[in-house]
Amino acid sequence: MAQGFKETLGGRFIVLDGPDGCGKSTQQRLLSEALVREGLEVSCMRDPGTTTAGESIRQILLSGDHGSLDPRCELLLFMAARAQMIAECIRPALAAGRVVLGDRFVSASCAYQGASGLDPAQIVQIGHFAIGGRWPDLTIVLDVPAELGMERIRKTEKAAALDAMERRPLDFHRRVREIFLNLGRVYPAPVAVIDATVAPEVVHQRILEVLDRVDH
Amino acid sequence: MAQGFKETLGGRFIVLDGPDGCGKSTQQRLLSEALVREGLEVSCMRDPGTTTAGESIRQILLSGDHGSLDPRCELLLFMAARAQMIAECIRPALAAGRVVLGDRFVSASCAYQGASGLDPAQIVQIGHFAIGGRWPDLTIVLDVPAELGMERIRKTEKAAALDAMERRPLDFHRRVREIFLNLGRVYPAPVAVIDATVAPEVVHQRILEVLDRVDH
Repeated sequence: MAQGFKETLGGRFIVLDGPDGCGKSTQQRLLSEALVREGLEVSCMRDPGTTTAGESIRQILLSGDHGSLDPRCELLLFMAARAQMIAECIRPALAAGRVVLGDRFVSASCAYQGASGLDPAQIVQIGHFAIGGRWPDLTIVLDVPAELGMERIRKTEKAAALDAMERRPLDFHRRVREIFLNLGRVYPAPVAVIDATVAPEVVHQRILEVLDRVDH
Repeated sequence: MAQGFKETLGGRFIVLDGPDGCGKSTQQRLLSEALVREGLEVSCMRDPGTTTAGESIRQILLSGDHGSLDPRCELLLFMAARAQMIAECIRPALAAGRVVLGDRFVSASCAYQGASGLDPAQIVQIGHFAIGGRWPDLTIVLDVPAELGMERIRKTEKAAALDAMERRPLDFHRRVREIFLNLGRVYPAPVAVIDATVAPEVVHQRILEVLDRVDH
């Protein structure tokens, strides 16, 4: 692993994002373990969720028990969960010098609610309000074609219990991927895109390389 | 009751709002009954709530089970509930020619989240997004001093189970009342303020008079 991480990543907020099946959760775990081995203190977030209110909001969003949610309601719920997570978890962790590793963030709303037809500029504007302007220092998009992402998800034990987002048609997931690939055009914070079609260990090495290039 | 209601109020969206203890729920019921007697079809909303998702959101907001909610999270949750209510209930009811009677709306966020320190202009902006620009045709603010509102609430059977909003200090409720009194300055839709310190039947008559002056 490259030198200098300890100095540069403490107090930084790094988000992993990308289409369903891109391997975010695996990479969040691998990266967290690598940073802890370097002596860094790491806080992992999941979005939506992490806080008590956020987990209740997650239930409304992903359980499918609440009928068909209006896209604006959906967006505002995701943003509400983020507002609580920023205030209750992320800001205190960063202030304590911890590395915060997010699994999804406002970037995911740009892609998913953008693919549902909402205006990305408006999503960014409401996101800015929700997070009080605390954008991630780096968002790493793990890129996989929609077909591969969906195939991976169908092979996992989750297949029997796909959430409300994952059950949408392939065409929707293709639009999601396109927005992720072009996220840098609308997102007000740094974005790096990594090919995540390769083996998890290879993706992990690429993530470390990208982090090593973050401004020292 | 004045003539002409049947022609002018069908398809209109009227909101009753005001400080806690102002008598909104009573007035909503009295007005609904009066309009039904006139042969109008009426849909009553409660905000936050009315929809399945909205009632779950209401639980998060008012139960107090979710610890201290960040003011931005709170605002976005109220707005999420409104987005669903507009899409699922209010627009279809208005399109069918019904009178929609709201109990609280974006105006309540201006007052309550405004009193929590958020910028009213930003509240209106996020509200505009949430409701897709469908502002009420008239918002009637039932004005009572904070002390009287709180005294009324303490006398009811609700006293033992005040919700998270109602438990806030008197000073907060005074700021809420001030914003309601000046709502017309920030709100992008018509507002009428009525003195609600008098008997419910008198307030009801004043509401009918205000509605009778709505553009015919």
